[in-house]
Amino acid sequence: MKRTAYRLADIVVRFGGRVLGDADTMISQIATLDSSQAGHLTFLASGKYRAQLAATRAGAVIVGEADAAATQLPRIVCDNPYAYFAKVSALLNPVPQALPGNHSSAVIGEGAQIDPTAHIGPHVVVGAGARIGAHCVIMAGCSIGAGTVIGEGARFYPQVVVYHDCILGNNLIVHSGAVIGADGFGIAMDEGRWLKIPQIGRVVIGDDVEIGANTTIDRGALDDTVIEDGVKLDNQIQVAHNVRIGAHTAIAGCVGIAGSTTIGRHCRIGGSAGILGHLQIADHVEISSFTLISKSIRESGSYTGIYPFSSNGEWRRNAAHLRHLDELADKIKTLQQEIEALRRKD
Amino acid sequence: MKRTAYRLADIVVRFGGRVLGDADTMISQIATLDSSQAGHLTFLASGKYRAQLAATRAGAVIVGEADAAATQLPRIVCDNPYAYFAKVSALLNPVPQALPGNHSSAVIGEGAQIDPTAHIGPHVVVGAGARIGAHCVIMAGCSIGAGTVIGEGARFYPQVVVYHDCILGNNLIVHSGAVIGADGFGIAMDEGRWLKIPQIGRVVIGDDVEIGANTTIDRGALDDTVIEDGVKLDNQIQVAHNVRIGAHTAIAGCVGIAGSTTIGRHCRIGGSAGILGHLQIADHVEISSFTLISKSIRESGSYTGIYPFSSNGEWRRNAAHLRHLDELADKIKTLQQEIEALRRKD
Amino acid sequence: MKRTAYRLADIVVRFGGRVLGDADTMISQIATLDSSQAGHLTFLASGKYRAQLAATRAGAVIVGEADAAATQLPRIVCDNPYAYFAKVSALLNPVPQALPGNHSSAVIGEGAQIDPTAHIGPHVVVGAGARIGAHCVIMAGCSIGAGTVIGEGARFYPQVVVYHDCILGNNLIVHSGAVIGADGFGIAMDEGRWLKIPQIGRVVIGDDVEIGANTTIDRGALDDTVIEDGVKLDNQIQVAHNVRIGAHTAIAGCVGIAGSTTIGRHCRIGGSAGILGHLQIADHVEISSFTLISKSIRESGSYTGIYPFSSNGEWRRNAAHLRHLDELADKIKTLQQEIEALRRKD
Repeated sequence: MKRTAYRLADIVVRFGGRVLGDADTMISQIATLDSSQAGHLTFLASGKYRAQLAATRAGAVIVGEADAAATQLPRIVCDNPYAYFAKVSALLNPVPQALPGNHSSAVIGEGAQIDPTAHIGPHVVVGAGARIGAHCVIMAGCSIGAGTVIGEGARFYPQVVVYHDCILGNNLIVHSGAVIGADGFGIAMDEGRWLKIPQIGRVVIGDDVEIGANTTIDRGALDDTVIEDGVKLDNQIQVAHNVRIGAHTAIAGCVGIAGSTTIGRHCRIGGSAGILGHLQIADHVEISSFTLISKSIRESGSYTGIYPFSSNGEWRRNAAHLRHLDELADKIKTLQQEIEALRRKD
Repeated sequence: MKRTAYRLADIVVRFGGRVLGDADTMISQIATLDSSQAGHLTFLASGKYRAQLAATRAGAVIVGEADAAATQLPRIVCDNPYAYFAKVSALLNPVPQALPGNHSSAVIGEGAQIDPTAHIGPHVVVGAGARIGAHCVIMAGCSIGAGTVIGEGARFYPQVVVYHDCILGNNLIVHSGAVIGADGFGIAMDEGRWLKIPQIGRVVIGDDVEIGANTTIDRGALDDTVIEDGVKLDNQIQVAHNVRIGAHTAIAGCVGIAGSTTIGRHCRIGGSAGILGHLQIADHVEISSFTLISKSIRESGSYTGIYPFSSNGEWRRNAAHLRHLDELADKIKTLQQEIEALRRKD
Repeated sequence: MKRTAYRLADIVVRFGGRVLGDADTMISQIATLDSSQAGHLTFLASGKYRAQLAATRAGAVIVGEADAAATQLPRIVCDNPYAYFAKVSALLNPVPQALPGNHSSAVIGEGAQIDPTAHIGPHVVVGAGARIGAHCVIMAGCSIGAGTVIGEGARFYPQVVVYHDCILGNNLIVHSGAVIGADGFGIAMDEGRWLKIPQIGRVVIGDDVEIGANTTIDRGALDDTVIEDGVKLDNQIQVAHNVRIGAHTAIAGCVGIAGSTTIGRHCRIGGSAGILGHLQIADHVEISSFTLISKSIRESGSYTGIYPFSSNGEWRRNAAHLRHLDELADKIKTLQQEIEALRRKD
């Protein structure tokens, strides 16, 4: 692929900031401090990488104001180098175009409405009455359920499944193997056997959402499961029925969220964390990786519950006491009383 | 879709219980207390929702005997409102029918036997010698391995994969992305390299089982992996080779079960729990979310092992001591001895 | 399927070891001690199964030197019975052959190079410029991205997805639903909204690797994600962008590895463990199931951090103290001082 190159001067016209050094320096790709070569633009997202900055072979660097003098290389000085890097990288690495139209092997259901600018890949199945918006790219083997509506500019990688009657917003990115709208886990015990509860809600997803590979988002039992605008979900996340995830919340891989929980806006949830069902999580909450949230969180802040690892032997010696903490606490109470008694005697 | 409506009187004829209030009230859908409208039937599954009951706009309510007088709305009084709701919802929301026959794009292997009442969707692949029973619905893109047998009335959502030679019972529901019969994780160390151990067992699944999206059930190494009747598995569960799951056990999302473990009947396992390999879990065991079961459980009951979360600062202060619990316990012992010594001196 | 039978004498010619008892005993399959019948070869991998050895109906047994006299059955005595069993099983259970050539429903992109000995199954999609090596078997519905290169002898089960421009080695086995090369979770916060960071690295996988069902391996953000030779990954593992996994490391199901972490060679990681990002894990490290590794590990050894489970009631009584460990430790310190004071008075 032939790459387009840009002058630093052109880049600051687009994205702001200012150039120090040669503003005619040509840039055709982004790279890390370590792997950059001539023609590459790199970035200093944190002061702790200054040693690597000294050694970089990059053609130019993006730095924050505090680091404006940290290098003699041609550089763009801006407020938020990491976000700036994201913008320049998107300019240098545009998403590949896909030809409009339906592949001959695609199977399109009765009454489905597919915008003529959309790309429908090989072996895609679009259910009856589904609607797919302008400039969508639906890649090989995806299955879009009957009556489902997809906004404009969506990008579905191969083998995404969306069940029937879901409502998906604009600019949605869904990675391979994700399943949207499968039945929630609704069962009722009836004389020793489980009855299935029909899951008649939908999944409703806002604009500018990204969903990782093999992530699952179940449809609502009665009401809907809702993912608000700007939510970013990593791979292998499980979102149960009737969950609501607030706008601009980001969730790392392997997180499980149980049914009917509401998560606020601008939250950040670490990998393999879990959240029990029917809870409320406030806005701007951070949850550490591997932490189970078992009660509602009413205040923004950072929350953690991780068992610290150690060598297996050390862990064994210490963990044995966890089953006797209550006795330990009792012993301490007794000791306090005994000392008090000794003191009084004195 | 035009909905069928039922009188409360008709419903109790089918499912039992009794009507209080106007038995001619027409019902066409089930809804929650909060979102119900006229024509909707709602339910009070627990006394803690009585405040919402007072405000509901539902046309009628399902209540237990204890709540027979908790509303003036037309109501069905029964023993188990939640199970009753499941039954009425299934009546009001029948599973969509699928036309019998094989889609022209399906690829059917030599000697495969597909019942003429079964529906085989677009791009489905059925391996040589596979058998698919009456009224099965195998949706788009599923892959059924050679020699695999599927009972009657199964419902496979798009892109389920079943490997070769598995035996699946009647009324099986499998959601998208589930993989049944992949090789178990069998490796043997041989002079610094792993040798693959062929996985020659099967997966054998009973009747009335449901399997969630992206759940994986590995085939046995030598003997079979077995899922008994009525088991309900949520999404993203991993069932390793040679596991046996007893009848009517329900397992929530993201649980991992290691190889050769046997789980009893009527167990309930919370989300993201784990069970190590080669263990025996008794019948009627409940395992909390996020709990690792590291030893066999011989008695029914409820078992938990969760690190309680707190604010990150509080967690830091407390968790530091976990690596020194053994020393703390020793200090307490020393204190006891010292106090004893002081006392004797007294 | 007609099975080939082998004499014990033939087997030791191939794989070494020595026969005790009738070397003409014919063997056609491998089985467990419990389920073996005549014509089956079983194995004693550990002394703890000696009771079952006494009761086995197998035709012959593989034993270690220490157990050479533990049975009167015809037997093969060798150094590593478990590895020996793996080798014999591979001999008795050869991988099914697949016919070379492209299925008529496969869609092959412009300039793709597929070795004539490779098998391309129904509904497979191969992107433009991809290369697929000799004797590869790419089963139904797989999607191979543009420019991706697959070595010789790979075996892809149905519905594997590989994104564009990845480099995969020889003898790679990938199970259904695995996704290789999806975008890493790269986002930058910009004035209250997340910007997507293009993921322009690749996934590079060595030789003799196996990847389990529904496992996901993300492509690198700028540099590559790397899986070295001989790595074995179980199901539902999440490997984030720019992770490197050292040669011959084995990882059990449901493990999550965060971005830019490097794992050494010959490590073993238990199920549902987690490893935070930007860490270094030494060679020959063992990590227990359900353990979160939150700091780099510089020395080989076994590491654990698991909350021990107990009955729910016992857990409740003990866990309550975890939020007050710091106070407990303070109390102990105070007690020590008070006792010291009392002593001095004495």
